[in-house]
Amino acid sequence: MKQITSIQNPFIKSLVLLQEKAKARKQSGTFLIEGKREISLALKGGYEIETILFLPEVCSETETRKLSNNAELIEINKDVYQKLAYRDTTEGVLAVAKAKSTQLSDLQLSENPLILIAEAPEKPGNIGALLRTADAANLDAVIIANPKSDLYNPNVVRSSVGCLFTNQIATGTTTEIIAFLKERNINFYCATLQNSTSYHTQDYTTPTALVVGTEATGLTQEWRDAATQNIIIPMQGEIDSMNVSVAAAILIFEAKRQRGF
Amino acid sequence: MKQITSIQNPFIKSLVLLQEKAKARKQSGTFLIEGKREISLALKGGYEIETILFLPEVCSETETRKLSNNAELIEINKDVYQKLAYRDTTEGVLAVAKAKSTQLSDLQLSENPLILIAEAPEKPGNIGALLRTADAANLDAVIIANPKSDLYNPNVVRSSVGCLFTNQIATGTTTEIIAFLKERNINFYCATLQNSTSYHTQDYTTPTALVVGTEATGLTQEWRDAATQNIIIPMQGEIDSMNVSVAAAILIFEAKRQRGF
Repeated sequence: MKQITSIQNPFIKSLVLLQEKAKARKQSGTFLIEGKREISLALKGGYEIETILFLPEVCSETETRKLSNNAELIEINKDVYQKLAYRDTTEGVLAVAKAKSTQLSDLQLSENPLILIAEAPEKPGNIGALLRTADAANLDAVIIANPKSDLYNPNVVRSSVGCLFTNQIATGTTTEIIAFLKERNINFYCATLQNSTSYHTQDYTTPTALVVGTEATGLTQEWRDAATQNIIIPMQGEIDSMNVSVAAAILIFEAKRQRGF
Repeated sequence: MKQITSIQNPFIKSLVLLQEKAKARKQSGTFLIEGKREISLALKGGYEIETILFLPEVCSETETRKLSNNAELIEINKDVYQKLAYRDTTEGVLAVAKAKSTQLSDLQLSENPLILIAEAPEKPGNIGALLRTADAANLDAVIIANPKSDLYNPNVVRSSVGCLFTNQIATGTTTEIIAFLKERNINFYCATLQNSTSYHTQDYTTPTALVVGTEATGLTQEWRDAATQNIIIPMQGEIDSMNVSVAAAILIFEAKRQRGF
């Protein structure tokens, strides 16, 4: 069993870079996952785990081995764990996983898909929240348009509580995604705050994508011009902005309701 | 014009305590608000502002005076501002406001009220998110059952982006709130993850309260036993928990849809 007890170890230093730098994740094609449940969901979701690091006083070798038969196991100590983990010593296990393709062309959609599209979400935490809701609704896919951070940003991994691995996810430019939807005759409804139709008057029972923008600036003109229909969630209070994951959830569950769950 | 330039000033020290200690807020009956929009919304919501502190290089005396005619104005410097503010120097203005009553008996409800109730929300940020959604839906009131933090916790103030002031809010024990609802013939629907009816099958067009619990443990037995109906949001993914503000939004907007907005 390989053991690493120094935070100066070059492999550990490379993992710190994976946590901190999108560039390091892109170059290596790998990222870090923390927590047993998250690692299990990643394996279930078809992610390849290269290495599992464990802190034996918190997560035993036997327990760790159960997570994955194929991964290399490395025993680490508390110093190393704390250097890599964000949740202190609660779970005692970390995995190095291979990133998956996020090509639009790799998405496998059902005959009557329901898709969520988020354009340029500002905060990784918002992507995580969207992925949780998408999981709950068992959407066909989540597509991030013009992403501002990579999907394997540690804050996305963390805030998705494993839903990064349970959803089909693709990324692309707004232009590519609009072309993708049009080719497949998928209607797309763009959530805006401007003069448009209330979301609950539209029919989402045929192939549908729901498109949300950022809290600060909403969707770009390109989406609003191309939309099957622009829709609005009626806002009746003093404040005219809604958290993007809340808005998405309202739209997604209206579609689910119309489809009879 | 009074000026304070030292973070050792006893008044400034008392304001730091207001930020940090629920006990200090309770004893003084005051709390801090940061930001122009937030202060404006508080005034509009009938909150009394005692004092406004401003950093003249960011927010001028004239601009500050426009916020409130009655409050005492105090000019502060950057050191003092940074000691008190959470957003660094973005807005340059802070107010000391009087807390309002959060008695159930003070709520003024419409003839056909729609109310959100949250039992013991774990995180102040969740209360803020719930208040944003409640504002958007123009609910009659938000009631916090068995609160774990006071409403004027700086994280509630901040995360509500001013919606703490645009909603009618009450707090009470679960027992008190159930009695309140029963006295007024308000039906209440309790969101659970256990064997119950899908939320979209129920009629929310009569006086209605929607009740949500914590993400970790859900609602207490007391709520579930007393409910007009326990309801569930069907979960079809791998993960069986939903962010509480997302769940509340789905329920609230289904009620709004049934009521025709």
